[in-house]
Amino acid sequence: METGFVAALGAWRTQEGPLSRSLSTAVREAVADGRLPAGTRLPSERELARALRISRGTVVTALTLLRDDGWLHTRHGSGSVVRLPARLTERTTPWSLDRGGASGADLDLTLAVTAAPHEAYLAALARAAERSAALLVDSGVATAGLPRLRELLADRYTRSGLATRPEQILVTSGAQAALTLLLDHLHTDRRAPVAVESPAYPGALAVLRGRRARLLPVPVAADTGWDTERLADAVRRGRPRLAYLVPDFHNPTGAHMDGPTRRALAELADRHELTLLADETMRDLDLRTPPGTEPHLSGRHVIQIGSASKTLWSGLRVGWIRAGADLVRQLRRNPLQAQLSPPPLEQLIATELLGDGLAALLADRRERLRAQRDHLTSLLAATGWTYAVPDGGLTVWLRLPGPVSASGLAARAARHGLAVTPGPLFAADRTTLSRHLRLPFTATPDTLTRAVRILRECAATEGERDRAAQG
Amino acid sequence: METGFVAALGAWRTQEGPLSRSLSTAVREAVADGRLPAGTRLPSERELARALRISRGTVVTALTLLRDDGWLHTRHGSGSVVRLPARLTERTTPWSLDRGGASGADLDLTLAVTAAPHEAYLAALARAAERSAALLVDSGVATAGLPRLRELLADRYTRSGLATRPEQILVTSGAQAALTLLLDHLHTDRRAPVAVESPAYPGALAVLRGRRARLLPVPVAADTGWDTERLADAVRRGRPRLAYLVPDFHNPTGAHMDGPTRRALAELADRHELTLLADETMRDLDLRTPPGTEPHLSGRHVIQIGSASKTLWSGLRVGWIRAGADLVRQLRRNPLQAQLSPPPLEQLIATELLGDGLAALLADRRERLRAQRDHLTSLLAATGWTYAVPDGGLTVWLRLPGPVSASGLAARAARHGLAVTPGPLFAADRTTLSRHLRLPFTATPDTLTRAVRILRECAATEGERDRAAQG
Repeated sequence: METGFVAALGAWRTQEGPLSRSLSTAVREAVADGRLPAGTRLPSERELARALRISRGTVVTALTLLRDDGWLHTRHGSGSVVRLPARLTERTTPWSLDRGGASGADLDLTLAVTAAPHEAYLAALARAAERSAALLVDSGVATAGLPRLRELLADRYTRSGLATRPEQILVTSGAQAALTLLLDHLHTDRRAPVAVESPAYPGALAVLRGRRARLLPVPVAADTGWDTERLADAVRRGRPRLAYLVPDFHNPTGAHMDGPTRRALAELADRHELTLLADETMRDLDLRTPPGTEPHLSGRHVIQIGSASKTLWSGLRVGWIRAGADLVRQLRRNPLQAQLSPPPLEQLIATELLGDGLAALLADRRERLRAQRDHLTSLLAATGWTYAVPDGGLTVWLRLPGPVSASGLAARAARHGLAVTPGPLFAADRTTLSRHLRLPFTATPDTLTRAVRILRECAATEGERDRAAQG
Repeated sequence: METGFVAALGAWRTQEGPLSRSLSTAVREAVADGRLPAGTRLPSERELARALRISRGTVVTALTLLRDDGWLHTRHGSGSVVRLPARLTERTTPWSLDRGGASGADLDLTLAVTAAPHEAYLAALARAAERSAALLVDSGVATAGLPRLRELLADRYTRSGLATRPEQILVTSGAQAALTLLLDHLHTDRRAPVAVESPAYPGALAVLRGRRARLLPVPVAADTGWDTERLADAVRRGRPRLAYLVPDFHNPTGAHMDGPTRRALAELADRHELTLLADETMRDLDLRTPPGTEPHLSGRHVIQIGSASKTLWSGLRVGWIRAGADLVRQLRRNPLQAQLSPPPLEQLIATELLGDGLAALLADRRERLRAQRDHLTSLLAATGWTYAVPDGGLTVWLRLPGPVSASGLAARAARHGLAVTPGPLFAADRTTLSRHLRLPFTATPDTLTRAVRILRECAATEGERDRAAQG
């Protein structure tokens, strides 16, 4: 009898309700938090009953509950093993999202992230583990990135139209890490403002605020995209030396920059010695069929930032910078670089996942995300709220009707068990965009349906309250 | 025939010398950089000869070379598999150190780091992979650390005399990441200096300089340790709000703080509202037999920083902060925190390695390091240079005789194929400590012997040159 199994259950008896249900809950939670790895073999029913000091009937009932729920797999003649249910391993929605996330709400729509591609990730991890032995005999200290990963990323850029050598790639622990490192090197005159989009990706705003950077917001809209004229005007007047942009399926609007705008921006950057930091984290999440063919935002004054955290998994923590080989060498000498360099093992996993299998993996993810986007927008169609169906990315950017305040709505929704992110969190000044709301379609259709229902009910109440206050 | 094997060899024919040697070199390098994972089965000699278009005799010679060198293991009847030689997997010295490291020298003694504990690490990685499935179905976004890891670290502190709850632990991607995060939160008044040791750990100096912090150096000596009076005086006059210290087997001197000094410093901190950042990265590398029993440097104004990168492996990138639960909550809200949080998988590996097996693993590492330290100091005994035998850590801090400049010596040694770090790199002002040199004993005895021979020859020449210049 494996005593490890019983130990992993912890104090399972303290749960309320029937013993069989307590036992099945304890097993499920032990599998869910990794104390009982998927594939662990269960002791026999007789052994379990004896070890747990309960009747065999109670054990049988608990195991039936687990089996029906997908947490237990029984092969005749070879016993039962615990596993994660297929409904969890086969979905893109993070598990915690609809069971009370970090926010404490029942439904958490504040994160626009996906679960890992389960089978592909486990396979990549196994191959990376096989290849790790050669790394373990060395120092493991930070480098510019594993040679094979830098080659692979350079090849990807070259194949998508942007000729790139491996020396132009610096591997970082994500897109925000890349931005932090670039700002530390390039944002030396703190009086010069940094141009950002409005709305902007909150992760980037947090990094910029952390540096006490002055922000120069320039509007971007879900339907009409970037206004080159206004950007040019802002650059002439505000004289920023840096701009942070998300040209591909912009977070939160989903806007996608067309070819002429890309060229206009690259020229503007050259004319004003303005460095554009183009965050391409969402570029692979193109939901059009077939995917589009827009070029990279590129040019003498453009630095590309990439990341695997939205296309693959946030927990991988692998991103990169594509820049001139000289700048990459300078960034390598920055004291922050070593701390913002991902562990070699994660780089091996990234190398496995970003290689030949990526296209099939992305096709599958895109199909799931497309279905979820379509489900969400079909729900929103009935609301009368304003939004554009995004061509890619992970989010829909809503405008609420009439007087309804997004922060008020979010606060009310939170009381009804739904956490959402209101517009001001995407605003450089933290106060405008007060009629907007971001909804990620990374949730399951079920959760999206429940979430929109809660939002509609809350919006109706908020609307009435506002009208009453004004009347 | 596995075509993967031949593909992994790349353009092996371009090497000079006999074909059999080129082939064995290509196989060795493919194993060393992970293209051929350890355990990969070789095609038969006949198949190899045909696929590579060489004679079977050449193949046999190449395989014999590999077998003799430990890169190939043959079991009668079941073919041959590639592997890493035991001399690499069983040593603590990083492989690249004595074969031309990052510095381009033949011998690289600039890094004081070890290779991973090979078998234990691979086993931990396998267990972590088994447990990772439950993480992959979730978002993977940054947290304060995996609950099991925070519990385990809190338990370790509690067992070593410092009662700690899991909420007091924040997991970071290493000690420098911990310092970066703490400085960003605590070093808000940039005019207030930060007290550091002289000599100080260069990684910490780099982080402090990156923030343009004013540095207030306070001496520490290999033999006499910290001078509490001078530190108290410096605190009264310079009014630092923060001090960064390495109380356990200080890098580079190896100094170890005694109990009374720890208490005196904690009182000094309380009296002057000075926050002590105690970096305990080296604490587990106690080379005394039996290990000492000094308490942690602790108190109301002390924050502990820990890391697995010196005791286990730099490539793990797992460290932590132990502080008040309130401060940990505040640090969690810092925009840098997410970027300085290690990937969940690395945290799982750390949880496996820092658990029950750690004591045996450390005992083994300590024994190897002790032998290497003793070898190095026996070599140094004959030089007439000044040093103290360190009770722990990874380095010996040398004082050169008479007029010999460490930077001159390091430059000369570099021309003779040996990279070492001269004293000024450990100085807050980058210029003093010009007679000192740090020698890590993480190298193999062979390498240490060669290194000291080169240093002695170079020092003799430098000494003559200096005397001639003065005469």
